Amino acid sequence: MSLHDEIREQPQRLKRLLAEQRETAEKIAAHIRARGIHYVFLAARGTSDNAGRYANYLWGAHNRLPIALATPSLFTYYAQPPRLEGALVLGVSQSGKSPDIVSVLEEGRRQGCLTLTVTNAPDSPLAQAADLVFDIQAGPEKAVAATKTYTAELMALAMLSAALRGEAQDWQELARVPEWIEILLEQDSDIERMAQRYRYMGQCVVLGRGFNYATAFEWALKLKELTYIIAEPYSSADFQHGPIAMVEGGFPVLAVTPQGKVFDSMLEMLVRLRERQHAELVVISDDTRALSLAQSAMRLPNGIPEWLTPLVAIVAGQLFACHLTRAKGYDTETPRSITKVTETH
Amino acid sequence: MSLHDEIREQPQRLKRLLAEQRETAEKIAAHIRARGIHYVFLAARGTSDNAGRYANYLWGAHNRLPIALATPSLFTYYAQPPRLEGALVLGVSQSGKSPDIVSVLEEGRRQGCLTLTVTNAPDSPLAQAADLVFDIQAGPEKAVAATKTYTAELMALAMLSAALRGEAQDWQELARVPEWIEILLEQDSDIERMAQRYRYMGQCVVLGRGFNYATAFEWALKLKELTYIIAEPYSSADFQHGPIAMVEGGFPVLAVTPQGKVFDSMLEMLVRLRERQHAELVVISDDTRALSLAQSAMRLPNGIPEWLTPLVAIVAGQLFACHLTRAKGYDTETPRSITKVTETH
Repeated sequence: MSLHDEIREQPQRLKRLLAEQRETAEKIAAHIRARGIHYVFLAARGTSDNAGRYANYLWGAHNRLPIALATPSLFTYYAQPPRLEGALVLGVSQSGKSPDIVSVLEEGRRQGCLTLTVTNAPDSPLAQAADLVFDIQAGPEKAVAATKTYTAELMALAMLSAALRGEAQDWQELARVPEWIEILLEQDSDIERMAQRYRYMGQCVVLGRGFNYATAFEWALKLKELTYIIAEPYSSADFQHGPIAMVEGGFPVLAVTPQGKVFDSMLEMLVRLRERQHAELVVISDDTRALSLAQSAMRLPNGIPEWLTPLVAIVAGQLFACHLTRAKGYDTETPRSITKVTETH
Repeated sequence: MSLHDEIREQPQRLKRLLAEQRETAEKIAAHIRARGIHYVFLAARGTSDNAGRYANYLWGAHNRLPIALATPSLFTYYAQPPRLEGALVLGVSQSGKSPDIVSVLEEGRRQGCLTLTVTNAPDSPLAQAADLVFDIQAGPEKAVAATKTYTAELMALAMLSAALRGEAQDWQELARVPEWIEILLEQDSDIERMAQRYRYMGQCVVLGRGFNYATAFEWALKLKELTYIIAEPYSSADFQHGPIAMVEGGFPVLAVTPQGKVFDSMLEMLVRLRERQHAELVVISDDTRALSLAQSAMRLPNGIPEWLTPLVAIVAGQLFACHLTRAKGYDTETPRSITKVTETH
């Protein structure tokens, strides 16, 4: 199994996850409802932290649950953990092995909070530290760069949101995600050709907002891990507060801009970047106006509801990163300097 | 008043802030204690968001208060704000004018939460939207890049922490901050000479952890706003989870590593970056081992307690950014593409 195989495997993995773990999601939701949670205290690193960024928007918008992103070093180095009364303490990690994330869950349990682990390793220390475990069932992930465990984490968090809200339409929409990813994967060879243009790109920014703030972070992370370029993610709002100053003619801006509530603000930013700052634009969207502004366009299937666009859009970003890695002559399977499990304290 | 003048003005501004606003801090702390707050829901953008990152560690470590960083677009575009029961809703903004931050405070008030604004503009819409206002008294800031309003926001958040904890030693330590900054400012011309070496630097990463995670973000933001280089901030833990792969020989890594609880983990990272990856290191520290690893070293005064190092360390970062801007032939007063007040929705 190569990175490319794992990217292409995502529709079938997500289909099975939806079929087999809906009951788990409903059970966890019942526990959460029974406890009268005020907010979620979420601990994660790297790719899983990006899944947490998705939950931050989704659980806020659909479930009205605020999310505090944990600062694990407060639990390890400073040993003065915050009081977590009223919190659901949630750890997200594919390996379930990072000691600092485990510390956060252990402290949550010590303080009597409800604790939940979302992981691909249901026997891991992180799973053992939690009251409730959601197994994302992504299968063994061999490539160092995480792809299918990311979309499986997003799906798990989306299933929990649907279970908490209890609206049948959410589940109907979730069921279509594997098919949308299948359609997107048809652009595989187009994206391979497109990536050639960026053979010598050394740096870029990646923009997203709302639900796709997470996608911008995860796309940027794949580019950094695999192609070694400097890829910095931003919400388009934060980008306007200063960093936009660095865009010169030809500077590459990658953008995730599906239709939805933040689309108009993103489109305005793309028009400004293209027409006034002469940026190079690589765009993932289902909107013709956004795509037509781009030198390189990756089209999303029509009709994806905004809350589910992150599960499909990132697959375009993964393919782009995978093909750019090959175009640059690097190895997609064993990126230098990083390992599959990083044990931070 | 130029950017450089505003950087040099910081000791006197902070001295006056400490003298004149301690009573305000004590009053606000009394309100917070009386309300039985479970956590803080914090809304900010840009430089003020970095001040929020400082509060995230400080209020966590010293006051055991978890902080959730708001996603303002949930309040504006998605119009489905989270339930904020049990939260102190806190807005931080020098101008007090960003409509999305104002929306968060208005919603907090609507839901009956205690609301607090930390701002340099006590008559602004953000101040009017809050129950309690902390005026940071930084005086008019003319330069587009914020410097003295950042340290004044940090000081305000540190004073609130001290008032909430009620330990006399905190106030004694706070009183020494202006003097430590004075000592650091003596390196002004050394830093000016040092910055010449980076005349053609186009990209870098900036590392910090714990309390100085905020400093890494703020130093990177000044570099982006003023020098237009790609400067990406990381906690050293997140950096290990992937992005470290992009460091090649000569790649510039800027690091904020004062002595304290996370120092050993940062030092280990610097040794690896220097010896195994042959990175170029620019280091702000009060530790001789860390400074001796660096090609360019900025020394912090001895004896600053870890929780206050961010107020002093960022001044070295500001001087570095200011002098690098001039070395690159750019204008420090009017960076291209950005304005003093950015109105995001």
